[in-house]
Amino acid sequence: MIFYQLFEKETSTYTYLLADERTKEAILIDPVIEMISRDSELIEQLDLNLKYILETHVHADHITASGELKKRFGAKVAISSAYDMSCVDLHLDDGQILNFGSHQIIVHHTPGHTSGCLTYQIGNMIFTGDALLIRGCGRTDFQEGSSDKLFESVRHKLFLLPDETLIYPGHDYKGFSHSTVGFEKKFNSRLKIENSKEDFIQIMQQLKLANPKKIHEAVPANLNCGLPLSNDFKNIYLIDNAPTMSAENFLKLLGHVQLIDVRGEDEFNNELGHIPGAQLVTLGEDLEKYLKKSINNQKMVFVCRSGKRSLTATKLALHLGFKEVFNLEGGMLKWNELRYPVVKDLGGS
Amino acid sequence: MIFYQLFEKETSTYTYLLADERTKEAILIDPVIEMISRDSELIEQLDLNLKYILETHVHADHITASGELKKRFGAKVAISSAYDMSCVDLHLDDGQILNFGSHQIIVHHTPGHTSGCLTYQIGNMIFTGDALLIRGCGRTDFQEGSSDKLFESVRHKLFLLPDETLIYPGHDYKGFSHSTVGFEKKFNSRLKIENSKEDFIQIMQQLKLANPKKIHEAVPANLNCGLPLSNDFKNIYLIDNAPTMSAENFLKLLGHVQLIDVRGEDEFNNELGHIPGAQLVTLGEDLEKYLKKSINNQKMVFVCRSGKRSLTATKLALHLGFKEVFNLEGGMLKWNELRYPVVKDLGGS
Repeated sequence: MIFYQLFEKETSTYTYLLADERTKEAILIDPVIEMISRDSELIEQLDLNLKYILETHVHADHITASGELKKRFGAKVAISSAYDMSCVDLHLDDGQILNFGSHQIIVHHTPGHTSGCLTYQIGNMIFTGDALLIRGCGRTDFQEGSSDKLFESVRHKLFLLPDETLIYPGHDYKGFSHSTVGFEKKFNSRLKIENSKEDFIQIMQQLKLANPKKIHEAVPANLNCGLPLSNDFKNIYLIDNAPTMSAENFLKLLGHVQLIDVRGEDEFNNELGHIPGAQLVTLGEDLEKYLKKSINNQKMVFVCRSGKRSLTATKLALHLGFKEVFNLEGGMLKWNELRYPVVKDLGGS
Repeated sequence: MIFYQLFEKETSTYTYLLADERTKEAILIDPVIEMISRDSELIEQLDLNLKYILETHVHADHITASGELKKRFGAKVAISSAYDMSCVDLHLDDGQILNFGSHQIIVHHTPGHTSGCLTYQIGNMIFTGDALLIRGCGRTDFQEGSSDKLFESVRHKLFLLPDETLIYPGHDYKGFSHSTVGFEKKFNSRLKIENSKEDFIQIMQQLKLANPKKIHEAVPANLNCGLPLSNDFKNIYLIDNAPTMSAENFLKLLGHVQLIDVRGEDEFNNELGHIPGAQLVTLGEDLEKYLKKSINNQKMVFVCRSGKRSLTATKLALHLGFKEVFNLEGGMLKWNELRYPVVKDLGGS
């Protein structure tokens, strides 16, 4: 079997790509919108036929790439039948079985982090999403979470699997890649065998976690399989007559619109970095040639360091007959500020 | 075989733990000082006997935990014979073979990123450090790097291994965990088979990378196996008569001195986070009890949010007869500023 564990650093999210070596049928578990270029390229390089995109649950901390990958690869998106989502092809129930090539996926309903959490079992591996993490578990304080149910899901379902069963979680914040059922029974500080349900409920009650930064944006977007909501292309304003969008708004469109970085090659790889999926076409001759070769009904967003060169690029594209081109206000400076915010002073000593 | 791939997010560094399932003899490749608590705990939980700590090279972007782990577990530290380092137990040469349990490690000299880069081969896995990365390779512009030599190492040594050989790199910046020789021969944009040595040298010359942030601190520290240099405990000053150290200075001591976080439990897990390895003992009754139970010739550093409570804690410890206790100036606010700096305005548009 082909097996890839893939990581997204900002939200410490794992995506898994599995495929049958012979038939090339593949599944992807919990893809992240920011990593869509990496994952699409990998699927193409491995020459895979993506059959299913499996969501462990509706995520609150990141936006899924399932909708966009479905469009690109014709795969079916699957999630728990606990959710009523029209963008989804398969609503899965406990005990249901799916196949890719000669491999079987057993669906386990493991609610508690959310009411619709699934764990996917493939051979001796379980993909637990946020139900069971390495030495921890998902929080239970929103999205119809329940410590009582999570305890049941882990202790009376997942922990009944053989001790050697490999656990592949939805996140890891300490750099672990996998664990085993035997190991978590012993060392999971919240859910280990020696803890009672009451112990667990008390531990979970005492966590005082801030909401995930992106929750208000991520949950509605994920209920639409991460596809742009109808109003995402509407918050457009003019700067110097060029259609412009904010970094916040662009975030929702990431992966759904072509992004052209008009800076120099050295800048593209400097400390400011570049936005995942951005294509480097430097303002000037390069960009002019590129635009003349492109079809002018394509949607494009231009980005530079601070928003000046991208404004010039947007105007150039308009001049060349493009209709849906946008300037990303504030450029990489604003983008980095939004994506990598400074830790705030919280008051108190 | 027991196999753990472990990740450090800040510098995107991979550490590998491998062990013989029967004899429990273990090796650790490229451990990172910030992750010493995680790795020590894992070794203890798995009940392993750490035999070797293998460095792929002298790192420029992070500080190794090899010296400290050697002290804790009595393991032997090994590195290339290209380095003359008194803290190292084994200086390795090309073709040399080491063992752990029933497993063999073949040492390959693969210079180019630095003059002393080694690749470790264990069965069908190669641990390539920075010589060969997934779809890339280490830079060749410092530490006696050479594009010419790196090309030879990869193309005429590593790429001669079977296509199915699994590549486990020293870093990955895109969230990949492994690759294969066959895959990199095809898709490594710098080193793929269709590129000539001249192509490669030109690609490497055109990279204009900033130096790693920690290079001036990391290289000297790593030449001493990451152990504190003699003057690290000297840059101490007094604030309100309490011995105090800066966050910059403390960074060098991380993992070598006991760190007590004197904030409340909620703060320990809030947005400011806590320093890896810190122990939570809240200022007040908790701390007083704790200090009275501790031996007062222990070195301790106290940290809080901004440096006020840690100052009080330091004075309390001095009052109780401790001789080597220190206040961490600026607390978590300063620490986060140092470790997670804001992207700077670089000038230009």
